Amino acid sequence: MLKMNDLPASGTNKPLVEELQTILEQEIPMCAQMGMQVVGQGPEGLEVRLPLGPNRNHQQTAFAGSLSALCSIAGWCTTYLHLKKLGRTGTIVIRRSTIRYNQPVDSPKISAFCRPVSADASEYFAEMLIEKGQAKLDVTVEIPGVDRPAVVFSGSYVVIAESAS
Amino acid sequence: MLKMNDLPASGTNKPLVEELQTILEQEIPMCAQMGMQVVGQGPEGLEVRLPLGPNRNHQQTAFAGSLSALCSIAGWCTTYLHLKKLGRTGTIVIRRSTIRYNQPVDSPKISAFCRPVSADASEYFAEMLIEKGQAKLDVTVEIPGVDRPAVVFSGSYVVIAESAS
Repeated sequence: MLKMNDLPASGTNKPLVEELQTILEQEIPMCAQMGMQVVGQGPEGLEVRLPLGPNRNHQQTAFAGSLSALCSIAGWCTTYLHLKKLGRTGTIVIRRSTIRYNQPVDSPKISAFCRPVSADASEYFAEMLIEKGQAKLDVTVEIPGVDRPAVVFSGSYVVIAESAS
Repeated sequence: MLKMNDLPASGTNKPLVEELQTILEQEIPMCAQMGMQVVGQGPEGLEVRLPLGPNRNHQQTAFAGSLSALCSIAGWCTTYLHLKKLGRTGTIVIRRSTIRYNQPVDSPKISAFCRPVSADASEYFAEMLIEKGQAKLDVTVEIPGVDRPAVVFSGSYVVIAESAS
């Protein structure tokens, strides 16, 4: 059985972070407009960040559309890293997501953390991808708030593998 | 009991459409960047539109973050119109939403329709707002696809009324 170890810690996965950042900036215009920045992998999960400035709403807090985009990208990046870890390429699509906005977000830099996927779920993802050529990854992304997460996002991503390289 | 009639049909609510458009363009920078356009109220519900161009992803289909923002704005606009209909002002916040992406979206102009809210739900919203100063509106937004909606969004919006004018 293929083991999915923890993804490399922040600082050690610079090429992958740069690869993700390049995709976001060069191929998804709205990620560039939002100023989306892949920070890296840490103990709290994969961090992706937005500045409040261009992402504010009419109440000077973060626009829900930007927060949702931020979380969906954090989940997408995590799925991308899982695929990379297996040495495979493929198409990743988000199938569904749920988001709860508990508190307004007004920090100048907004961080979303895609929580580490359990070893069991990572292994199952790897098995399905290898055996069936298709797999689903469920992720949880949180934006910290006061006493509890300001935003909690759950997303399901489907990966369709290309032929093994 | 206060009756919430259907909102005015497209063409008859031009000032309100312009008011919404002004808020989106002038006060929410990302809505301006996305090119979000409030079309108006029709039999299929309130229509809000995006051009694909600036909202594409690396696969040349619509970026999930833009689709989610589009749907959340269509729901927000519908809630705003409900509040206006009551002659009240207040703060509208999205509390939670769920979105399902059934099919990729690749039309050059992407329309989302916030489905008409039932008369019962509209009346309950009005009663709560008047009696409690706070009310919740649940909406469904769809982006049409082939044979079935390409995207289905459900959102809950909470309104906190300002003092009666």
